[in-house]
Amino acid sequence: MITIKDVAIEAGVSIATVSRVINKSPKASRTSIRSVTKAMEKLGYRPNAAARALVSQKTTTMGVLVGDVSDPFFGTMAKSIDRVARQNDKNILISNGYHNCNEERQALELLINSRCEAMVIHSKALSNEELIDYANETKGVVFINRHIPELAERCISLNNRQGSFLATEYLIRQGHRKIACIASSHDIEDTDERLQGYQAALKEHGIELPKSYIEYDEPNSDGGEVAMTNLLTKSLEITGVVAYNDYMAAGALATLDQNGIDVPSKLSMVGFDDGLIARFVHPSLTTIHYPIEMMAEHAARLALALSRDEKIEDKTLMFSPTLVQRNSVERC
Amino acid sequence: MITIKDVAIEAGVSIATVSRVINKSPKASRTSIRSVTKAMEKLGYRPNAAARALVSQKTTTMGVLVGDVSDPFFGTMAKSIDRVARQNDKNILISNGYHNCNEERQALELLINSRCEAMVIHSKALSNEELIDYANETKGVVFINRHIPELAERCISLNNRQGSFLATEYLIRQGHRKIACIASSHDIEDTDERLQGYQAALKEHGIELPKSYIEYDEPNSDGGEVAMTNLLTKSLEITGVVAYNDYMAAGALATLDQNGIDVPSKLSMVGFDDGLIARFVHPSLTTIHYPIEMMAEHAARLALALSRDEKIEDKTLMFSPTLVQRNSVERC
Repeated sequence: MITIKDVAIEAGVSIATVSRVINKSPKASRTSIRSVTKAMEKLGYRPNAAARALVSQKTTTMGVLVGDVSDPFFGTMAKSIDRVARQNDKNILISNGYHNCNEERQALELLINSRCEAMVIHSKALSNEELIDYANETKGVVFINRHIPELAERCISLNNRQGSFLATEYLIRQGHRKIACIASSHDIEDTDERLQGYQAALKEHGIELPKSYIEYDEPNSDGGEVAMTNLLTKSLEITGVVAYNDYMAAGALATLDQNGIDVPSKLSMVGFDDGLIARFVHPSLTTIHYPIEMMAEHAARLALALSRDEKIEDKTLMFSPTLVQRNSVERC
Repeated sequence: MITIKDVAIEAGVSIATVSRVINKSPKASRTSIRSVTKAMEKLGYRPNAAARALVSQKTTTMGVLVGDVSDPFFGTMAKSIDRVARQNDKNILISNGYHNCNEERQALELLINSRCEAMVIHSKALSNEELIDYANETKGVVFINRHIPELAERCISLNNRQGSFLATEYLIRQGHRKIACIASSHDIEDTDERLQGYQAALKEHGIELPKSYIEYDEPNSDGGEVAMTNLLTKSLEITGVVAYNDYMAAGALATLDQNGIDVPSKLSMVGFDDGLIARFVHPSLTTIHYPIEMMAEHAARLALALSRDEKIEDKTLMFSPTLVQRNSVERC
């Protein structure tokens, strides 16, 4: 492998001079820039990112912690951060945390140890206390889809409660009163917040329903199938369903299809996320738009600004969901 | 920022000793390991990945070039590589090439300059010649979903031709003879190979169809809608369609639904990829399974082996697609 020493010998300068040229130091003279560049080209030497990072104590990578990059929600989030990173001549290092405490910690350690000075972290398993420690250690850390009171100005989150409130109220305005809720069984704050939104909308409109109208299961399509089956089994009178996310809604739609219950003429369904599949399920899903692209771009800009001790103009921290009308809801 | 020098002073040893301990050199004595570790803990010093990489000339990251991480196909690919990387105590650096020549080159340069010694590259825009140059420069580079004759042993690909042959022949075996093809308008080898498979199956079964049975458009759901609309407009007698991928098939299904043409009773549809949406569209899509997980894991293992000058037992280079039966095909 060609080393910086070989380049120095070829260029007839010191290693320190080569280093200055590579790191674009203002101390490098024009003559040395010319001779070092020529020597590097001749030898096919590639300035080593690790060496550059060591000298400048800065890397050209931004860190991103996602739940699981194979989920399009996180893919979209990572792509949005990549867009901001590229605009700032940086690339991204993505690590998966799989909503698991140990995996998240390991992924975070990797990003910090790799000297990513700007990081967007989607953590669901680590405690507030542990995340506060990480944030104190690295000033460019921003948390997305999480709210930590002590770090409020570094947390970008969605008003989940408002989202499911919107979904439920939309059904109520369409004349529905017997509205079931397909909730997630995962113990993360999103679960509670979305459930609270559903309950608040019912309460505000004077609707009282027994707890049997709520079914909990895994937040994927299989979970949605099970939850919908359970709701049907209980012989409840149901005209509308609000689902925790689009995957659960898709599973519920499959169960309804198999049971010959037409959506939306017999039952209306509202999802959450407005992800890739919402347009493809049948009927196409009326759902709550999760502005993950806008949130991820904002988080990336905030992380970069914090890492450079700069201020950011746009101070939005909690984003608002909106309702997207498609074909899964009908007047009751 | 705490430096290695601070640790050396605190531990009462030389900087070289601290470096040996951090880099787990066999030359580090037990006493120095103990005192340095204690000093590092006391000062809150984090061994710097960049410094470690510089000393050992190895990084702990594997490079991955994908088309677009927000497409679940690439998300699944990246996740599979991450799985292998983690088994080998490495993490992955993901870069997007967006099937664009300049973006792919920039992404590859970043990965190489970051000293990723094992890399899995999904490149569609760069020429064989340019990729051969990169491969010569870095021994741990493996190409996925690409076949370069001069680098055959470092290319992992899918038999695309066989895939669309399978899809077309399956329709023929179900009694279909008027089979249209919704092809991609992108100028990449996959396009030609999949078209060839369709044509070869027709030929083998003595079916001759005019070229108007082939429609080209963008390989996404909008493109599928346009292509299907064009096929309908031409008043062709069509009982079956093979689509370039699941997205185009989904778009075609939407057009058929809007036109009151029932799938599968009036028309049968076969997709390609067996991606996330295949299960969610209506009817669920009979499609060709693209074993991207298995291929990506294999590519990652091969890249690691090559970077270490090791041999790999499993020498599979071209993987075979298989047909997945769901509900979009009926006997004609």
